[in-house]
Amino acid sequence: MPTTLEFWFEFASTYSYVAAMRIEGLCAAAGVPLRWKPFLLGPLFALQGWNDSHFNLNPRRGAYMWRDMERLTTKFGLPWRRPAVFPRATTRPARVACHVADEPWAGDFIRRIFTANFGDDRDIQSLEVLREILADLGQDADTALATAESPERRSLLRANTEAAAAAGLFGAPNCLVNGELFWGEEALEDAVAWAQRPQ
Amino acid sequence: MPTTLEFWFEFASTYSYVAAMRIEGLCAAAGVPLRWKPFLLGPLFALQGWNDSHFNLNPRRGAYMWRDMERLTTKFGLPWRRPAVFPRATTRPARVACHVADEPWAGDFIRRIFTANFGDDRDIQSLEVLREILADLGQDADTALATAESPERRSLLRANTEAAAAAGLFGAPNCLVNGELFWGEEALEDAVAWAQRPQ
Repeated sequence: MPTTLEFWFEFASTYSYVAAMRIEGLCAAAGVPLRWKPFLLGPLFALQGWNDSHFNLNPRRGAYMWRDMERLTTKFGLPWRRPAVFPRATTRPARVACHVADEPWAGDFIRRIFTANFGDDRDIQSLEVLREILADLGQDADTALATAESPERRSLLRANTEAAAAAGLFGAPNCLVNGELFWGEEALEDAVAWAQRPQ
Repeated sequence: MPTTLEFWFEFASTYSYVAAMRIEGLCAAAGVPLRWKPFLLGPLFALQGWNDSHFNLNPRRGAYMWRDMERLTTKFGLPWRRPAVFPRATTRPARVACHVADEPWAGDFIRRIFTANFGDDRDIQSLEVLREILADLGQDADTALATAESPERRSLLRANTEAAAAAGLFGAPNCLVNGELFWGEEALEDAVAWAQRPQ
């Protein structure tokens, strides 16, 4: 009986984009249940003494990441446009993703948000973009946005972010399988294989 | 006609260990010529404002790396013992590796040094360990060590380290294929595939 794989991601994270586009298909093919876990990287970066993405703080590391994104999106056939703003504010789409994480269309919503950021260079914090994507998915956008920002639902994102810190996360994306952490886009296959093992 | 793959590594680097144990086999299977490029990470870390391995400076990142090493060495069937000293001083074996990099037994020497550090927890900077490994490989250890430390040969390591900085490297291991940089143990397969493409 496969273990559930928790996919912990941040909408501003480039490697989370590539991983988010692949993880549902990988889990489905392996018979591994998937749980979406949106969180905010900012507080985790602050724990490490950073006030920005380390890709901005460390130009050598950043230059490599942007080139790597060109290669990875080509490798996996994903749309790619380097965003004009990096990292983008993501609290609003992340709150919606927390709110709908258990819905059958959660994966579609998450991939649409990521593609808006990294395929179309759009401001995924804007209500216009969020409404458009929710409507395209056949959802009542105003209700979804209002509920996601309600006091009882907006706390979900803070709870996820605190749980991410408590679990030892330091970046994104991550897969957590029965407490075992797999960090990085290139660890997806190992994480899925881990979830298939007897625990 | 495949392009030469340059493998840039540091003997103190855990992920360089896993990669160094695999790269010659991957290149041979793909018909890709391999060139060994030992360098020192310390000066590259200094360029990024670090006075130690970031795995020591950042405990969250470090804890993940040590667990990842247990998993990766299991995955690839490699010996593993967490070294008592990390990172170890490596100038002496790195100078020997530079000196013998074009010899047919360079890969054997490099894998033996890495295994002494990460499989056997031995001080790879000690003359005793270096002599033992060189002798096991049928080499005249005293001559090899003396030549590697001679003024004209010891400059090879500094030249490699300066070339690494100029090429934009920021960590290890790396594959450089016709100027294209692939960083990290998990990028080996992509780097080998890149070397097989028409350039």
